Amino acid sequence: MKIEVKGELRDFRSVWAENEKVFLINQTSLPEKFEVFECRTHEDIAYAIKSMVVRGAPAIGCAASYGIFLACAEFKKKKSCFDLFPVFLHDVENFMKSTRPTAVDLFNQVDKISKALKSCLSIDEAVEKAKLTADGIADENVYECIKIGEFGSKLIKDGFKILTHCNAGALACADYGTALGVIRKANESGKKIFVYVDETRPRLQGKLTSWELLNEGIPHKVIADNAAGYFMKAGCVDVVVVGADRIALNGDTANKIGTYEKAVLAHENNIPFYVAAPSSTIDRNCGEGSLIPIEFRCGDEVLYLDGKKIFPEGSTAENPSFDVTPAKYITGIITEKGVFKPGEVRNLF
Amino acid sequence: MKIEVKGELRDFRSVWAENEKVFLINQTSLPEKFEVFECRTHEDIAYAIKSMVVRGAPAIGCAASYGIFLACAEFKKKKSCFDLFPVFLHDVENFMKSTRPTAVDLFNQVDKISKALKSCLSIDEAVEKAKLTADGIADENVYECIKIGEFGSKLIKDGFKILTHCNAGALACADYGTALGVIRKANESGKKIFVYVDETRPRLQGKLTSWELLNEGIPHKVIADNAAGYFMKAGCVDVVVVGADRIALNGDTANKIGTYEKAVLAHENNIPFYVAAPSSTIDRNCGEGSLIPIEFRCGDEVLYLDGKKIFPEGSTAENPSFDVTPAKYITGIITEKGVFKPGEVRNLF
Repeated sequence: MKIEVKGELRDFRSVWAENEKVFLINQTSLPEKFEVFECRTHEDIAYAIKSMVVRGAPAIGCAASYGIFLACAEFKKKKSCFDLFPVFLHDVENFMKSTRPTAVDLFNQVDKISKALKSCLSIDEAVEKAKLTADGIADENVYECIKIGEFGSKLIKDGFKILTHCNAGALACADYGTALGVIRKANESGKKIFVYVDETRPRLQGKLTSWELLNEGIPHKVIADNAAGYFMKAGCVDVVVVGADRIALNGDTANKIGTYEKAVLAHENNIPFYVAAPSSTIDRNCGEGSLIPIEFRCGDEVLYLDGKKIFPEGSTAENPSFDVTPAKYITGIITEKGVFKPGEVRNLF
Repeated sequence: MKIEVKGELRDFRSVWAENEKVFLINQTSLPEKFEVFECRTHEDIAYAIKSMVVRGAPAIGCAASYGIFLACAEFKKKKSCFDLFPVFLHDVENFMKSTRPTAVDLFNQVDKISKALKSCLSIDEAVEKAKLTADGIADENVYECIKIGEFGSKLIKDGFKILTHCNAGALACADYGTALGVIRKANESGKKIFVYVDETRPRLQGKLTSWELLNEGIPHKVIADNAAGYFMKAGCVDVVVVGADRIALNGDTANKIGTYEKAVLAHENNIPFYVAAPSSTIDRNCGEGSLIPIEFRCGDEVLYLDGKKIFPEGSTAENPSFDVTPAKYITGIITEKGVFKPGEVRNLF
């Protein structure tokens, strides 16, 4: 994605590696400040995932695979016996997987890189292979997002008003974005579009979406999550496009809390509701949405803003971070392989 | 309502008059600070309504009628000829009615007090009658809220988990509350209840609801508006109770933005959805919800918090403050005269 830094327009990914360091665009400091978060160890990566310095299912998957790469480099520096590497790697895998429970790309990408390392005969080979595989995962994700954009943008007609929830943009992936990939591509192909951006409480990821759309010059308005239904009922929304954190084999989809609400409202108002995600977001071990673990984060994410409590002293909050949208509310799932009905995604395996 | 001020538990209404001054609990400074906002002129009242120092359909109705009382007192001080009073009163009525467009209690109560003043033969009589009528409107509202609580609490079973949106509490009325009147009464009758409090973006009136529930010792949790659907689908919500700003004759109900979303979700999850409001909230001149004017407030209510912009520089917002819930999603309307199906409210006239 193009970002203006000190007056110069530069191209960034949300996650990348250089010289055995991994760099992440710090999503907790956007939009106020553009900062790059430097990770020297796999623990740094785990911290960044847990604290949402990096967020978005595909971006978390990329970051975690780079975490495995850093772990390999750490093992090399310790000059331990290579016989210990499989056990070390196994522990690191479990540690990386423990950072967040809902997004499945984390698990899928950690498994992918671990499998690639199985055949390595030396730590030098492992470090090199880890870097190549992690880079490959990121490259593949960018390719997938562009394909998602191509397939998805065909669903967007000139003049469409699109509603999106949370941030499924370049920041949430290696680059380009899933739901925002669709929007980006529609805009690049010259279609006149307008985007309603749900602010997405409690963490207000709508500000990341607005930031990306401002960078691209795509017309949009931020709305309170409560207002999405109003605009749907008023006939102002032609299509809803969101990302996904995990898709079950029956098409049930876990995504940012509130997605379920928007899907039900779209259904009620006969508005097409699309999920855009790479096929790595489909969990081949998960038959249906009720089996997807839902992360509950600290209630303070609701009660505090910028370190200040906005609710009364003594009040407490419940804070589920994701919800599951049943397949019946989903018009289609836009992947890098094409657009599928929810019930068809199991055929991708 | 009982409020602890400087260690002493005192009884307050949200709006009251003393010595030709009107006092309002300042709802913009709660829950951080308990402050009383003093109004000496009807312009002060109008300012308080516009800036949401006083909010909530019945409370606005009470405040506006006290505004007419202050206007009468102002006219008296000017020692103008009483022949000019009808024109002056007419202008003041229009001015008070221009403060906010959606809540109908404002219009109904201003009309009520104006009608009462029609027969006055002197300004002294008008001042006295205005005070009596405004006090009567407030007293009546308290009585209505208690009756709403009595009728409504019969719908709440022991152990119920109740979801509410916005603040339809003592603060939103003269006292006691409509939706919170139901909850308050259920609690007073010894039923064990639990309340999910929607935070209610953009203005976060959930903090007022949490503040009232804390004062009453009623167990509750604040949730992001996005999470209401999650808890409904998870089977955690037995009933939804909300207030109303205007009810059309067919039962369509305007209320705080997001109410429509919660009603659709309750319907989809087979959860009863009740509107609690005095019959003064029913607009006998309004056949259906599409005729209710919806206030759009400044987008900065979404973009800024505590004077700080939380969205990127350059981003803009759309901010409808109310939405209309079609009657088909409403299980019943709880009034001071009983609980009615939405289609039955027209029979109240």
